[in-house]
Amino acid sequence: MTEVEPLTFKRILLTIDADDPSANEAALRYAVTQAKTFHAELGICSVLEGDDINIYDSLTPKKLDEKRAALNQVIDHYVTMAEDFGVSDVTAIASEGGDIDDEILDTIIPNFKPDLLVCGADKDGEHHFYSISVKLAKKAKISVIVVR
Amino acid sequence: MTEVEPLTFKRILLTIDADDPSANEAALRYAVTQAKTFHAELGICSVLEGDDINIYDSLTPKKLDEKRAALNQVIDHYVTMAEDFGVSDVTAIASEGGDIDDEILDTIIPNFKPDLLVCGADKDGEHHFYSISVKLAKKAKISVIVVR
Repeated sequence: MTEVEPLTFKRILLTIDADDPSANEAALRYAVTQAKTFHAELGICSVLEGDDINIYDSLTPKKLDEKRAALNQVIDHYVTMAEDFGVSDVTAIASEGGDIDDEILDTIIPNFKPDLLVCGADKDGEHHFYSISVKLAKKAKISVIVVR
Repeated sequence: MTEVEPLTFKRILLTIDADDPSANEAALRYAVTQAKTFHAELGICSVLEGDDINIYDSLTPKKLDEKRAALNQVIDHYVTMAEDFGVSDVTAIASEGGDIDDEILDTIIPNFKPDLLVCGADKDGEHHFYSISVKLAKKAKISVIVVR
C-alpha cells in the first residue's frame, strides 16, 4: 500500500478585489488560517485595473496617485489583519495592469513565486472578479483555490 | 481593526479520476493533510463516465459490473490510503453519469454536502478531467481547489 506524504503550501498568494470587500472575506480567512497553521509566507496582492483609470483620470497624475494610494491603503489593511491573526511573514503587493488576471499570472506570480493562489468569488454570480477567479484556476500553473 | 476568524473546512470531497492516477496524487495529499489537521470528514468520489460505457459494453451486464467493480476497487484503495494517513472519517462514493461534472454538481455534492471540493489537474494540459476541474471551480456553490 502506497504511503501518502503530507502536502502543505509554503508560499500563499491571496488576491483581493479592492472594490468588493465581501468577496474577499472568506478568502482572507482561509489564507491566514493556512499560513498560520502551516507557517507559510503570505503575499497579499491587489491590482489597480486599467478600467479603473478612466481617460480623465489618466490625464491628471494627482488622480492616479490618489487611486494608487487608496489601493495601497486597502492592501495594508489586509496585511495588518493578517499580522494581527498571527501570520508572521506577510508581504503587500500592489500592482496595476489592463487585465487583472494577466497581471497576476504574468507579473505577480513570477515575482512572488507562490505555490498556492487564493481567490474569493462573488456570491451573487456575475461579477468580473468572479470570472477572474475561474480564469486563474484555469491558467495558473500552481494550485488555485476559489473560496466561497 | 476587524478581527479575522479562522476558516477551516469540515466536510471535504476529493474527486479522483480513476483512469489517471498521476492527476490525483497531489489532490489526495492535500485532502488528507487538511482532513487530518483540521479533523474534517473526507469523502472520496469517482464517476464512471458515460463514455466509458460503450454500446457493446452496455449490452453485456457482466462488462458493466466489471467496470463498476474496478471503479470501486480504485476508490477503496484511496480510502485505505487516507485511513492509513490518519484520517478517521472517510467515505467512499462511487457514481456514474453521462457528464462527470454534472454528476458531481447535481448528485454527489447535494448528497455528501461538502464545504470544499478538491480536484486534481492534468499537468500536461489538455485532458478532459482538467477541464472538469475548471468547470467545477466555476459552477460549484462551494469552495473548490485545483491542486497541481
